[in-house]
Amino acid sequence: MLREDVTEAIRAAVFEELAAVGFARMSIEGIARRAGVGKTAVYRRWKSKLSLVLDLLTAFAVEGLPAPATGSLYGDVRALLEVAAHALRHPVASQVIPDLLVEAARHPEITEAVRATLLDSQRGVVAQVVRDAVERGELARGADADRALDLVVGPLYWRLVVVRDARLPEGYLDDLAHASVAALRA
Amino acid sequence: MLREDVTEAIRAAVFEELAAVGFARMSIEGIARRAGVGKTAVYRRWKSKLSLVLDLLTAFAVEGLPAPATGSLYGDVRALLEVAAHALRHPVASQVIPDLLVEAARHPEITEAVRATLLDSQRGVVAQVVRDAVERGELARGADADRALDLVVGPLYWRLVVVRDARLPEGYLDDLAHASVAALRA
Repeated sequence: MLREDVTEAIRAAVFEELAAVGFARMSIEGIARRAGVGKTAVYRRWKSKLSLVLDLLTAFAVEGLPAPATGSLYGDVRALLEVAAHALRHPVASQVIPDLLVEAARHPEITEAVRATLLDSQRGVVAQVVRDAVERGELARGADADRALDLVVGPLYWRLVVVRDARLPEGYLDDLAHASVAALRA
Repeated sequence: MLREDVTEAIRAAVFEELAAVGFARMSIEGIARRAGVGKTAVYRRWKSKLSLVLDLLTAFAVEGLPAPATGSLYGDVRALLEVAAHALRHPVASQVIPDLLVEAARHPEITEAVRATLLDSQRGVVAQVVRDAVERGELARGADADRALDLVVGPLYWRLVVVRDARLPEGYLDDLAHASVAALRA
């Protein structure tokens, strides 16, 4: 394998190991086995499983999303929910991030990395949606992006990740977009 | 120790161990050590750490809450949020349940127990709040309790458990109650 292919194989193996056994039980040995490389190939690149996971999350976080810009607050919220529903069904969101949130209580380094991955990119997009809505007069000046993120993403996260209803009721995202817009404007 | 005291000491130790090391790393040995009893005292009562945790969650779930019945939908939602904000700061909610949700993907038995603990009691309370609001004409007939739970508890869960802002902004719960009522009525 080329050096870059080894790095990629290790990264892919970490995601798979995290989903399969979780952070607590994950080992460098297991990662190396899954990647089809020797343990030293892993240790040459990262000094511990923690640094591996942190590096991976940081790489994941960089892929920022553009704000939807549909021309209406409802349209933008509906588009955000579509992307979020897709992302929250991905193993990284449904399995890896909750796992790391649990670990975060014991490893404060993880908290910041998860925050950066899960929140900062979403926060940027929602902040843009809020600014656009304020400009169009759909939201009051001074509307808060963190509040908006809670109201838009919170119910969907609860339903998909906590309640674990992978199959949303028919029309759920349309209804949730309407409800969220009403909440944002309240 | 009396037999009942041993049982209680073990139950308390399980909660502490779950919070401290998590389900994956928790061992019967660690529980026994923390409880100040022998391993056989644990095994005499429960056959595995999984059956211990399931038993504990079931016991926790039984303590149902009465519906707030303040006489208005806003008052009821505000009261629910107060209780939820308190509960979501408890280690069982912030640490143990997310941990078990992660384990649930690997142990389907856990899914049902967590569901019963986290959802069924809350769902009952929210269903009553919705019924009361429909009777007063504050919500349309046929308003859905699961939708209400998503809209009321989702944003707070996101803020307290995912974003991990333990200190809510001043007036946050009042504002969230207003926003949730607007969402429920949308």
